[in-house]
Amino acid sequence: MNPTLPSTQTWSDPVAHAPLAFRVEHTLKDEVGTPRARAARLYLRGAQGQTHEVLTPTFMPVGTQGTVKAVTTRELREMKAQIILGNTYHLYLRPGHERVDRLGELHGFMNWQGPILTDSGGFQVFSLAGLNKIDDQGVTFQSHIDGSSHRFTPELSMEIQRGLGSNIVMAFDQCPPYPATPEMVQAAMRRTVAWANRGLAVPLKAHQARFGIVQGGLYENLREQSAQEITSLPFDGFAIGGLSIGESPDLMQKMARHTAPLLPQDKPRYLMGVGRPQDLVEGVRAGIDMFDCVMPTRNARNGQLFTSQGKVNIKNARYADDAGPLDPECPCETCTQYSRAYLRHLFICGEALSARLNTVHNLTYYTRIMTQMREAILENRFDAWVDSFYRGLGQKQGETA
Amino acid sequence: MNPTLPSTQTWSDPVAHAPLAFRVEHTLKDEVGTPRARAARLYLRGAQGQTHEVLTPTFMPVGTQGTVKAVTTRELREMKAQIILGNTYHLYLRPGHERVDRLGELHGFMNWQGPILTDSGGFQVFSLAGLNKIDDQGVTFQSHIDGSSHRFTPELSMEIQRGLGSNIVMAFDQCPPYPATPEMVQAAMRRTVAWANRGLAVPLKAHQARFGIVQGGLYENLREQSAQEITSLPFDGFAIGGLSIGESPDLMQKMARHTAPLLPQDKPRYLMGVGRPQDLVEGVRAGIDMFDCVMPTRNARNGQLFTSQGKVNIKNARYADDAGPLDPECPCETCTQYSRAYLRHLFICGEALSARLNTVHNLTYYTRIMTQMREAILENRFDAWVDSFYRGLGQKQGETA
Repeated sequence: MNPTLPSTQTWSDPVAHAPLAFRVEHTLKDEVGTPRARAARLYLRGAQGQTHEVLTPTFMPVGTQGTVKAVTTRELREMKAQIILGNTYHLYLRPGHERVDRLGELHGFMNWQGPILTDSGGFQVFSLAGLNKIDDQGVTFQSHIDGSSHRFTPELSMEIQRGLGSNIVMAFDQCPPYPATPEMVQAAMRRTVAWANRGLAVPLKAHQARFGIVQGGLYENLREQSAQEITSLPFDGFAIGGLSIGESPDLMQKMARHTAPLLPQDKPRYLMGVGRPQDLVEGVRAGIDMFDCVMPTRNARNGQLFTSQGKVNIKNARYADDAGPLDPECPCETCTQYSRAYLRHLFICGEALSARLNTVHNLTYYTRIMTQMREAILENRFDAWVDSFYRGLGQKQGETA
Repeated sequence: MNPTLPSTQTWSDPVAHAPLAFRVEHTLKDEVGTPRARAARLYLRGAQGQTHEVLTPTFMPVGTQGTVKAVTTRELREMKAQIILGNTYHLYLRPGHERVDRLGELHGFMNWQGPILTDSGGFQVFSLAGLNKIDDQGVTFQSHIDGSSHRFTPELSMEIQRGLGSNIVMAFDQCPPYPATPEMVQAAMRRTVAWANRGLAVPLKAHQARFGIVQGGLYENLREQSAQEITSLPFDGFAIGGLSIGESPDLMQKMARHTAPLLPQDKPRYLMGVGRPQDLVEGVRAGIDMFDCVMPTRNARNGQLFTSQGKVNIKNARYADDAGPLDPECPCETCTQYSRAYLRHLFICGEALSARLNTVHNLTYYTRIMTQMREAILENRFDAWVDSFYRGLGQKQGETA
């Protein structure tokens, strides 16, 4: 038994002796017999000895700075979010991981009782910060807030995530830019493996699981090599990184479909930073279990709403007198309590409530399609569900994307 | 019986034959025997024949553009807001009163089932819009949004408020600036009486009550004259306007105290645009029943929070590691679910959730002190409650204002 568990033992199977367990319930095979879309249950250990159960496939709302923008954790529960993502880079800068640790880890700090996955900070350093220098030891960068200089190493990334107390800790990797030559991608892969090993050597808290990240750019052979290298390491789950960074959706989907079966069938698979609703559908079809993306929350703030009948740009004048619900099939507070005309008015006026109601809806849309896909997989009607999904998008011609 | 009432009669006493009824439950007298602080019940008719009961004294959160900024109507109910205020000027410009009327009046449009008071638009035209010209017939002004030219008259103000369907319609008045000479104030009073009469000639919907507005600047004799003029007209309630526009709090409180007893005891009294918590306390002590002010919502967005122990400027570094609740005596979601450290983090990061959680708290603080004052009046311990209130503010020296 793990000595760090409290004496009032609430811990039970399946994660009594490890921070993570994963049970595949049902797997569909594609036309050539490759195991693909699956429904599973991901068990994660809580810091207080509780067990979190996450039904997959699942989408993780992004809570960059200790908040999923504009919504409360009560609302996240109401919209059936099961696990959320926190950003190591942002939380390291503000309010600082040691402070978060003192204030009850990220769960206590932001009042979220469910599980949390934290990224490694690497991708954000490359994409947001003023980048000074990357070398084999780590990355020196300037804060996007005040220009101050900082340095991330694989070890510090683990220490930060340890302080945050997340349930799933991501390896510190190097994501090559797009486009990149095979040589550039291979150099990033070498670093990614070396940094993965260095991170594995840093102890975490007893409840924290670790995911490795497969790179390899848009080269199938390099994806195969990276998958082979990373999956040989003792991670609890595996992510596909380096996609959705500028390549076409078709290429992204093709590469995810190529890489997913290279990952162990008995461990969770996470497609990082993806994406549009149809990308989630294609990801699930490829065999992915977990997703995250800022799209539902960011688009909500820009008035771009996802509905069962296609995309709605709520600022469009056609909605000015539309007393109907945003999405008649959606059970969220926004759709059951407010009209399209009101949502348009809030957006046009720049009201804070606009971002909030739009976010509640878009996240509900995302969690609902994940639930629907899971049920369709379990009932062996996934292909029919996918057909129906694309038909729904096509109903509003000219507005779907 | 009113023929506009639906055949499925849910209407009952006390507002079966009028849009408003007011029942004073208990009145306290001051040291010279003048009736002052009182607890009452205000009954308002709903457009669908329902009865709204408002326990007074009460504070009305300001919902300028069809939303109390950053919060939902569900939250307004949770924080026990009884009646809210809508702004005629803003709603006329966006989305337009005729559109609001088509979309279920303001109640249906913004999904608020409780009663609504609308201002006349006059004060906002004077304070927000580019003012072109004021004459005896009305006011020509330029929109603060796009500079377009518009003209308000007493008649149009009634038509707009009729379209909005508010339960209490305010007379279109002229608020003289501060400072103003007696002659300027008298000229505004003459227009205010003339405009009040013109507004009264415009028919409203059956469920709409009307309030007149007493002006008179900071001159006691002019307040007396204006009160005499306005209260002689057939309004359902009376407001004290033209205060809290730049004069000192002491002068404002003195003028409210002078004017309140000049208003009928059997009708509701509303002190417009006031104010700080201590101004509400002094207003109630003077005999006022209703208040509105942007202070709790605006200050919330600026990180200025009201607590039982005095004001808190949440961006202060002293709260960075403060795991305690914002106000340990407050039952709101913000105080029971989140720490001061987290609230500070959200404010520093400019997160949308900051304005929202701060607004929930500040409005809860306001509704709670109103409830406490009402109970204290009913139990003949109002003076003791006021003493305790000021002692609470004094506990955090240097932070109270």
